Amino acid sequence: METLSENRCFGGVQGVYKHASGATGCDMTFGLFLPAEAQDGPVPVLWYLSGLTCTHENAMVKAGAQGWAAEQGIALVFPDTSPRGDGVADDEAYDLGQGAGFYVNATQEPWAPHFRMWDYVAEDLPALLAREFPLDADRQSITGHSMGGHGALTLAMGLPGRFRSVSAFSPICHPTAAEWGRKQLAAYLGADEAAWAPHDATLMMRQAGLDIPLLTDTGTADPFIDMLRPEVLAEAAMTRRVPATLRLQPGYDHSYFFVSTFMEDHITFHAEALYA
Amino acid sequence: METLSENRCFGGVQGVYKHASGATGCDMTFGLFLPAEAQDGPVPVLWYLSGLTCTHENAMVKAGAQGWAAEQGIALVFPDTSPRGDGVADDEAYDLGQGAGFYVNATQEPWAPHFRMWDYVAEDLPALLAREFPLDADRQSITGHSMGGHGALTLAMGLPGRFRSVSAFSPICHPTAAEWGRKQLAAYLGADEAAWAPHDATLMMRQAGLDIPLLTDTGTADPFIDMLRPEVLAEAAMTRRVPATLRLQPGYDHSYFFVSTFMEDHITFHAEALYA
Repeated sequence: METLSENRCFGGVQGVYKHASGATGCDMTFGLFLPAEAQDGPVPVLWYLSGLTCTHENAMVKAGAQGWAAEQGIALVFPDTSPRGDGVADDEAYDLGQGAGFYVNATQEPWAPHFRMWDYVAEDLPALLAREFPLDADRQSITGHSMGGHGALTLAMGLPGRFRSVSAFSPICHPTAAEWGRKQLAAYLGADEAAWAPHDATLMMRQAGLDIPLLTDTGTADPFIDMLRPEVLAEAAMTRRVPATLRLQPGYDHSYFFVSTFMEDHITFHAEALYA
Repeated sequence: METLSENRCFGGVQGVYKHASGATGCDMTFGLFLPAEAQDGPVPVLWYLSGLTCTHENAMVKAGAQGWAAEQGIALVFPDTSPRGDGVADDEAYDLGQGAGFYVNATQEPWAPHFRMWDYVAEDLPALLAREFPLDADRQSITGHSMGGHGALTLAMGLPGRFRSVSAFSPICHPTAAEWGRKQLAAYLGADEAAWAPHDATLMMRQAGLDIPLLTDTGTADPFIDMLRPEVLAEAAMTRRVPATLRLQPGYDHSYFFVSTFMEDHITFHAEALYA
């Protein structure tokens, strides 16, 4: 692991690190905020998964999360959204290939060799973090934005017992039925839609529910809201009697101006679960 | 109007009053909390509609609302849930007749002469309050519990422009499709289900949406949750892009222990709209 940068931030340290990932078969970069409390021992950790076109950097810079995380003594992990590099397949479209990993393990060419973002976030990066940093693996929660909201929801449901709480900002709720989803799942996983179901939060919710607290926020002025479909996840979560708080925020859009506005609420929500 | 009692409460006055109602054709009793600020001029008002078997008194005594209302300078109105008295029809069941008005105007015998709770809450009591108390009719919001949550939601959607915000605790969300609803709507309104639709929050939401903020809380351990059906209202409200916060609260039931737990949140929510 290589340290690319470390900056003091709200009494703690905002670092950026690079490591060779076995899951993706390439170097991966991630951000990690450690609060001051990490000097004294392991701290709880909140994963933040980013959206289409983002790197590890966007939320680290624009979400305003570190201040609230410092107040709560919580670490923040900001993974990248895909494998990257010259040897890694890509597409001209912004929503496929590099920057658009969709948090799945690709089975189709040309994506299969590197696009294994599920394994990267679920196994590879957690193992590295456990070796290198004072993080408490028994106290993890997860959030994300847009494609990263999809990732947070599907990882939380796909890895029962891993996380204590899950939240999402403007998540893609039902990718098997939306433009943001069908294109990528077909490309990465192939034409058989049965393989897509374990990566659709609404389908997963309908099938198995969720036994940890859930919070989502979506802006009513989000230009992508008809692709995000908060209503189908809401119906499924409430039918499954999930401990859920599902909110539409009037006038807000899809940007980090929206995400940052509600970041305090999300970190407070996760802190309640992490310190319960 | 007759004053039955007035008690100092959180710096204001909790009163109970009786008046002859033209809408219901009988004497009606209601509770009114006026905060200290009412001594200096009109204050905003939050209506609280109660559930099956309740009178004006239950929430007034058990919801813990006055402290938060006093903090916000907001009045609280607690109407009764039906007409009452020897000359008023009744049924042996707890969920029909006296204590179970369902916030509709009955058209069927033996209920039609007195069971006009829609008109009572929408017209009759507001007119009396405007004459007798320092309340600001331009700043009204509404909430309620169970059957009263149904009332709050249907009145808010049925009287556009009247209220600035609406919330509900464990509301009956889809009465035309639930045991709590079909029985009463059939009895009061007759067999033609077309007449029921304007008293079903989910159907109203699907048809016309809502342009004021909405907050609902329902307990996951509510023994009536399969009749309440928060999931269908959630799907409808989010599809209609309503400024909504729809929450399931893990482990809470249908009682006033639940209602009082989240009363601060609801009054804070309404205060934001009433003072916007």
